[in-house]
Amino acid sequence: MIIQLNPGVTLSEAESIAFAHKFILCRRSDSLLLITPSSLKKLPVNLEKDVKESWVFDDDIQLSSKKFYNRTRPVTIGELEIGGNHNRTIIMGGPCSVESEEQIIQSAELVKSCGLSVLRAGAFKPRTSPYSFQGLGEKGMQLLRKAADGAGLKVISEVKDSTHLEIVAEYADIIQIGAKAMYDQGILRFCSKTVKPVLIKRGFGSTVQEWLQAAEFVLSGGNENVMLCERGIRTFETKSRFTLDLCGVAWVKQHSNLPVILDPSHAMGYAFGVPDLARACVAMGVDGLLIETHPDPPAALSDAAQQLNPEEFRELIASLHPVAAAIGKTIC
Amino acid sequence: MIIQLNPGVTLSEAESIAFAHKFILCRRSDSLLLITPSSLKKLPVNLEKDVKESWVFDDDIQLSSKKFYNRTRPVTIGELEIGGNHNRTIIMGGPCSVESEEQIIQSAELVKSCGLSVLRAGAFKPRTSPYSFQGLGEKGMQLLRKAADGAGLKVISEVKDSTHLEIVAEYADIIQIGAKAMYDQGILRFCSKTVKPVLIKRGFGSTVQEWLQAAEFVLSGGNENVMLCERGIRTFETKSRFTLDLCGVAWVKQHSNLPVILDPSHAMGYAFGVPDLARACVAMGVDGLLIETHPDPPAALSDAAQQLNPEEFRELIASLHPVAAAIGKTIC
Amino acid sequence: MIIQLNPGVTLSEAESIAFAHKFILCRRSDSLLLITPSSLKKLPVNLEKDVKESWVFDDDIQLSSKKFYNRTRPVTIGELEIGGNHNRTIIMGGPCSVESEEQIIQSAELVKSCGLSVLRAGAFKPRTSPYSFQGLGEKGMQLLRKAADGAGLKVISEVKDSTHLEIVAEYADIIQIGAKAMYDQGILRFCSKTVKPVLIKRGFGSTVQEWLQAAEFVLSGGNENVMLCERGIRTFETKSRFTLDLCGVAWVKQHSNLPVILDPSHAMGYAFGVPDLARACVAMGVDGLLIETHPDPPAALSDAAQQLNPEEFRELIASLHPVAAAIGKTIC
Amino acid sequence: MIIQLNPGVTLSEAESIAFAHKFILCRRSDSLLLITPSSLKKLPVNLEKDVKESWVFDDDIQLSSKKFYNRTRPVTIGELEIGGNHNRTIIMGGPCSVESEEQIIQSAELVKSCGLSVLRAGAFKPRTSPYSFQGLGEKGMQLLRKAADGAGLKVISEVKDSTHLEIVAEYADIIQIGAKAMYDQGILRFCSKTVKPVLIKRGFGSTVQEWLQAAEFVLSGGNENVMLCERGIRTFETKSRFTLDLCGVAWVKQHSNLPVILDPSHAMGYAFGVPDLARACVAMGVDGLLIETHPDPPAALSDAAQQLNPEEFRELIASLHPVAAAIGKTIC
Repeated sequence: MIIQLNPGVTLSEAESIAFAHKFILCRRSDSLLLITPSSLKKLPVNLEKDVKESWVFDDDIQLSSKKFYNRTRPVTIGELEIGGNHNRTIIMGGPCSVESEEQIIQSAELVKSCGLSVLRAGAFKPRTSPYSFQGLGEKGMQLLRKAADGAGLKVISEVKDSTHLEIVAEYADIIQIGAKAMYDQGILRFCSKTVKPVLIKRGFGSTVQEWLQAAEFVLSGGNENVMLCERGIRTFETKSRFTLDLCGVAWVKQHSNLPVILDPSHAMGYAFGVPDLARACVAMGVDGLLIETHPDPPAALSDAAQQLNPEEFRELIASLHPVAAAIGKTIC
Repeated sequence: MIIQLNPGVTLSEAESIAFAHKFILCRRSDSLLLITPSSLKKLPVNLEKDVKESWVFDDDIQLSSKKFYNRTRPVTIGELEIGGNHNRTIIMGGPCSVESEEQIIQSAELVKSCGLSVLRAGAFKPRTSPYSFQGLGEKGMQLLRKAADGAGLKVISEVKDSTHLEIVAEYADIIQIGAKAMYDQGILRFCSKTVKPVLIKRGFGSTVQEWLQAAEFVLSGGNENVMLCERGIRTFETKSRFTLDLCGVAWVKQHSNLPVILDPSHAMGYAFGVPDLARACVAMGVDGLLIETHPDPPAALSDAAQQLNPEEFRELIASLHPVAAAIGKTIC
Repeated sequence: MIIQLNPGVTLSEAESIAFAHKFILCRRSDSLLLITPSSLKKLPVNLEKDVKESWVFDDDIQLSSKKFYNRTRPVTIGELEIGGNHNRTIIMGGPCSVESEEQIIQSAELVKSCGLSVLRAGAFKPRTSPYSFQGLGEKGMQLLRKAADGAGLKVISEVKDSTHLEIVAEYADIIQIGAKAMYDQGILRFCSKTVKPVLIKRGFGSTVQEWLQAAEFVLSGGNENVMLCERGIRTFETKSRFTLDLCGVAWVKQHSNLPVILDPSHAMGYAFGVPDLARACVAMGVDGLLIETHPDPPAALSDAAQQLNPEEFRELIASLHPVAAAIGKTIC
Repeated sequence: MIIQLNPGVTLSEAESIAFAHKFILCRRSDSLLLITPSSLKKLPVNLEKDVKESWVFDDDIQLSSKKFYNRTRPVTIGELEIGGNHNRTIIMGGPCSVESEEQIIQSAELVKSCGLSVLRAGAFKPRTSPYSFQGLGEKGMQLLRKAADGAGLKVISEVKDSTHLEIVAEYADIIQIGAKAMYDQGILRFCSKTVKPVLIKRGFGSTVQEWLQAAEFVLSGGNENVMLCERGIRTFETKSRFTLDLCGVAWVKQHSNLPVILDPSHAMGYAFGVPDLARACVAMGVDGLLIETHPDPPAALSDAAQQLNPEEFRELIASLHPVAAAIGKTIC
């Protein structure tokens, strides 16, 4: 249940009520909200006088539900807005990993020359096997920031675990919570206490329900700048690396108020399928895409098979404009 | 391995070779082909003189592989062609089941009025539970044929098991092999011995590999008019009925020469997600879509939740034209 | 809903009631039952006087539910009984396929010498790829029957599609419905009209719910001799061929009245894991196991990797006795 | 590749070699090991003189492979040994969460009275929804330690994310890495730098390959006291909470040298299936089990449905002794 308090209720009164009932108190710019477990279906009688409006829910998808807020929330990064009512599909492009100054500058220039606004790359790559490339760390974040600033781009970069969270938060404009870290409540809590935009990648073994509950952690902790990212779930099919769950995306678009970003590169795992999938994603009417591109994919230190080369990337972006236009959107 | 014999080899000589080596003999309009297990990687020495050309494969995806025929095969139904080089996306619309003469005539008129060419509906619905509606049977096929003929449409209808195969083959223009019947080699063999177009729905627990092997049964038996249909696979996600596997479709488009049809209605299981998914499917550049629509969905005897009402269907079809145009295709 | 009619109601009266209400009429040795869709939760008023007892269900698991019959049903094959209250775990052993007279006689002798009662082997092997060994057909069934008779064993053999159903039914004591044929209602209906015991393998993409609904088809059609067989479901894990779902088995043991047989050979797909899994299955307290063994596994024409050699099979059976004894059961 | 250096090579020489080649250096009590990516299949020529023995691997399962060490490693917790050659199956029992002093003392007494050695319970329960009970935190760890000490038991407790890792490490004898934290390399690295035993729960969306790679992180970082725990994977089946993957366990027993612990409670999610599954697990011959029990399950603050009550737990443990004896093991 979400309870919006009367304007007359002071912050300290609200804190007392929240404490007494073990509710979560959320300060919004224009109101105070109490968030209760969704199992509560009726207002406590003694609270009624303090309540302006309240919403009851079937399950713990509350602040992110269209039942509470019936449009797509806007997420603001400086002058750039994702979601909201702009009819834009934001393409975030760049390599899997920052590998060198030259490589990330080339990537930034490519992204800029395609008319896009956000550069993606990872600096912390603690991958599943201890015997592979693990990323450039803070040095990588510095190179990424510098390359993006040089080209006038925003930066999105991924957090894999708590040990490098503060560094990523310092250099990036959007904190990307990795699929394997989606349940990490140390990370979720940290993100809930900033106002920095957060993109939550769906764990490949996670249900839509759990993914939205992860978003509820950040939202209920006080950060409204939350985006969801579908990047493929794990199924029995092995011809592709994962299975992009567009049915799940259709559900989220119908029921959730959060912007949705899709990542066809990680879902497919092979460059050959990415353009067709990216066009499908744009035609779904989502708020953005993450697409991997590398100046020289065969030489990439991670995810070599799935990154587009610069020419493929340019061609893909060019082909997305008419698809976006067909559904009343623009690519940027 | 596929072996194309020299034009000088007679049919009876070819039969002798096939028998001696336990190869499958395929008569094509302009040539004789021998199909061997893919484990054979080298021509038997004594055959070399009879061979015009040969193709070696990694696995049992042979006749359906782009390595053998590097374009999308055309499937011809009278004056209608699916696949091939027409840049058309064929929409096959209609209800889940034939329920009455009035219902199927209304459906046919709707499909026709949208400028489409193929009417879909099932007459045999032996569903998972014995305690549900099981379809109108042959009477249903007659009503379906009559409604389609009245509106000048082609008919596609589904076979669930061998007991009603011949009836469906008699009345339909395209035999749809149901997802639960994909492994049924009685059905596959029957279909391989006709020239009637066959659409093979992927089993929801079946890999892309197995799906294409089912197609190989029909192709190697002599019927070249084979289409593939992805209709969602079963995963851990329960917010949608199945998960539409567009990564698998991207693989098939890259590696197979068979036309691909997508069925977003069965994948999603709920009408609300079908339009977004249908637009995504069209943007993938596939050869066709199956979409369920019913004159009055809440009254439908099967799949009530996923069928579009006539107005939703008309709006959807209208919205597909610009998406198809954006990738250089037309809807029909 | 299951409705047991009063003893005074005649068969023709029962038929009239069933026809009028579209209920399924089941003749049991001592009573007449009407089976309705499970959505019916209350007796029709005009029927009350004819009803002795009735049972209401949450879903279409009705005749197979412990709510209807609170023990494990017995399935009788001559003097052999599976399930019921015998505390026996029946091991059905033998090769994947009948390959030759010598091979199947050796297999029968091995099974007999281990003190077991049922020989398993398949004669129809229409496998997923058209380019592999497809079985010996009716000749194989004859060899299997002869070998079993020679050793005094019962025979179980698999039906893959309708085309060979009658041949299998003629020669085998137990009709095994293959995992890929579980939804085939041509087969289910045929089996429901005999009294021959039927073992229904769970489809590897099928839920427990659907598996039991397949059993309901056979039970409601009139055949009470139904067994369930879990043989592994398809998951994302690729180190084994399938994933044996013992949690699903625990659910079935708790909620269903049908005997349960487990097939660790097909689940694992590799001989090395079969003994440990077989001991686990016996410790679960199920009614039987299917285990593949071949006189010379590396020479097997199908499933070579998963069949135990005679020595491994003998050792395994010896090790099962103390495990069965530990839970109060015997192996036979 | 694993390279065992000659005894004559000093630590500082080994460090130089490791640094020069970017290998991981592992100090073992009696030797120095270099671990390379498994893609290295041949010794660098200039190293040959320093090498005593070397092992080549197909993939990044190296230190945990039976190809390197052909038995089950022992893990020592004071006088208790898990794995090794003791033929013991260690049962770790206790509630899901520490809820109060009384509750955890009752649990400890129950575990002790059954003749067992390890008490399990969680104090940090940052669960998927922010609107549920989140655990007692450090206070819970203190109560757990005190209760275990009072009964003479060892303690295992779970880490969910890095924020509470040091507290759990301080109070517990075995650090349990939660299924949702399996990929957290902050946690894995921390654990690799202690000698405290670590139990790595398999992520429910993780392959066996990834699970063993997580173990490689801890092993290659220097901690040899690693155990694996299978607790169910996520599949399409919804009758149970997860699907216990005993085929995966069979693979691990064959190929890995790490002790294996099974958790039937979390896999099943319902108390009714736990006893049958627990007996199956013991019959598999694994090194231990985790079983949830609570003094009063319906009152439990988390996982109420799957915890056994004291009587059920006692009965279960009694029934495990003969099953263990049947395969030559003892329960403790």
